[in-house]
Amino acid sequence: MSWRTPIIPPLAKELAPALQARIDNKTKPPRSLGRLEEIALRLGLMQATVQPKLVAPHVLVFAGDHGLAREGVSPFPPEVTPQMVLNFLAGGAGINVLARLSDLPIKVIDAGVAAELPDHPDLIKRKVRLGTRNALHEPALTPAEVEQCLEAGAAVVRELAEKHGTNAILPGELGIGNSAAAALLYSAFTGRPIAECTGRGAGHDDAGLARKIAILQRVQAKHGDIREPLAALAAFGGCEIAMMTGAMLEAASRRMLVMVDGFISTSAALAAARLAPAASDYFIFAHASGDGPHRVAVQALGGKPLIDLGMKLGEGTGAAMAWPIVRAAVAFLDEMATFESAGVSERAKESAK
Amino acid sequence: MSWRTPIIPPLAKELAPALQARIDNKTKPPRSLGRLEEIALRLGLMQATVQPKLVAPHVLVFAGDHGLAREGVSPFPPEVTPQMVLNFLAGGAGINVLARLSDLPIKVIDAGVAAELPDHPDLIKRKVRLGTRNALHEPALTPAEVEQCLEAGAAVVRELAEKHGTNAILPGELGIGNSAAAALLYSAFTGRPIAECTGRGAGHDDAGLARKIAILQRVQAKHGDIREPLAALAAFGGCEIAMMTGAMLEAASRRMLVMVDGFISTSAALAAARLAPAASDYFIFAHASGDGPHRVAVQALGGKPLIDLGMKLGEGTGAAMAWPIVRAAVAFLDEMATFESAGVSERAKESAK
Repeated sequence: MSWRTPIIPPLAKELAPALQARIDNKTKPPRSLGRLEEIALRLGLMQATVQPKLVAPHVLVFAGDHGLAREGVSPFPPEVTPQMVLNFLAGGAGINVLARLSDLPIKVIDAGVAAELPDHPDLIKRKVRLGTRNALHEPALTPAEVEQCLEAGAAVVRELAEKHGTNAILPGELGIGNSAAAALLYSAFTGRPIAECTGRGAGHDDAGLARKIAILQRVQAKHGDIREPLAALAAFGGCEIAMMTGAMLEAASRRMLVMVDGFISTSAALAAARLAPAASDYFIFAHASGDGPHRVAVQALGGKPLIDLGMKLGEGTGAAMAWPIVRAAVAFLDEMATFESAGVSERAKESAK
Repeated sequence: MSWRTPIIPPLAKELAPALQARIDNKTKPPRSLGRLEEIALRLGLMQATVQPKLVAPHVLVFAGDHGLAREGVSPFPPEVTPQMVLNFLAGGAGINVLARLSDLPIKVIDAGVAAELPDHPDLIKRKVRLGTRNALHEPALTPAEVEQCLEAGAAVVRELAEKHGTNAILPGELGIGNSAAAALLYSAFTGRPIAECTGRGAGHDDAGLARKIAILQRVQAKHGDIREPLAALAAFGGCEIAMMTGAMLEAASRRMLVMVDGFISTSAALAAARLAPAASDYFIFAHASGDGPHRVAVQALGGKPLIDLGMKLGEGTGAAMAWPIVRAAVAFLDEMATFESAGVSERAKESAK
């Protein structure tokens, strides 16, 4: 085990003028497709082509349990993690519905669920531990376990790329207690106080939120001021967040689009960007989570979410809900007629009037 | 010809508790699907059922020309209207691409294009005139022509409902100069000064926008203070806006969802709501147009657009881009497992902790 942060290739910025010319020659007023045009351009730069394509995109739901969940940081009991994995595999969860609508296959990755799970064609078994240790008392993961997570996440992406030619991933997650770990990572990576980083997660009321913040303050006091990404992932976990971080880095190293989902996924995006800043060139921020402190991390990454529907389910649901926008960006560039091909007159020069 | 505003049935508000219970029993934290949950509820109230469905939704692109276009209110020449109709029929326009991605069929309605158009299976010929009169000098339409437009729009919707069982429409439009007509209607229906209602349309620069506003001020001076909806549609046109108004009213009278698109479509929505205020119960505002003054009309209707991507192409593209969100709302309510069916534990009562 010797994890090395992969090298991220730069965007193909030299193609920007050619891409912009293609965009502007479509039968529409200039810039009238708004952010679809930005995305088309970004994807071209990522893929180093004037005709970006989306090949075999996959939703990847990384699942793991958290020792800290024993402290009551979530209103749901920990057994919900394996129960929900089974719900994913049976096709009944929110992400299943949203992914089906966009023909996105889902793979569930057991990163560290605290229960043995059955074999299933859509379940990738990469369990590092049966849940993390309780970060209130000790580091959630050892440094070796963090590396194992990063490498496993990278391997999942590598296999998709090699097997299907996948060039886009939509990482999501599941894990009772993982919005607490994400808040600790937000605070570590942005330097903002934990109270500004902690959200209601799966639906805390005011008292529950206050209790969650108090517990996380104790966790921080236990570990001291940690900023280094691998150390932060070790201190706070979880397996699913670290594995997602590895997946995102591997994806960026392969010029793949990473659709960044919500509160927890963005903590992995932050970790990835702290390990390799250029990774964020390959991120598109799908949505603004309804869990308010998400914006702390999005701002730290300079992101501009595509949609803002108050969703806060995780699982990759925000990424899947924004996916049609990315598809539309690729499709308009590929399929729309040009002024010339359609025989449509271009706009007059205003100065000529 | 004797147009009567149809009667709009009230929302089935008595079903709200049963719908909310269905929503809350899905395997997700309460309210975690955000606006998807609002839409699922709204659709249930519209359709008077706890399991709303989307049946044979259609994009309807109403096309018409404007006499006022001769004054240079658009940077594109008027011949672009029929050229773009042919582009729609050939499948090469923005709306074709976005509609295809969501399997939405498109019908183009010739409401008043200033050219004869060929027969085509996707073209519905309802031409009222070869373009409106020039509103700078005379009313754009006669009262009888306005009624003819309203009735034709209603007939298009009636036929879809009877032939396909359609219960949702996505109206869009095309017409060089029609953002000028829409601005005049915004001002008439909201009482706001024309300068606050006029947008850049198909891409005016600052000088073009100033010229457009100056022309529209002269149009207003010619016609005086008009607030009554039929009189405003007659004074300012256009055929496509009045026909869309008729289509929206007919749709609402049949409990059909109306996805309201952007700048011009919202002027028709305003006209419809002024004629029958309850019609707006059946509107969902797809997007915030990148043409800023759109918000004047959306606010007047109490709307809350689903997406804000800076799009300002018209044609129904905003409605088509937001359509996957509506589909997702229906699908989660239909397809997601319940806590009981999936064997997932519900959240603990916080007070029990």
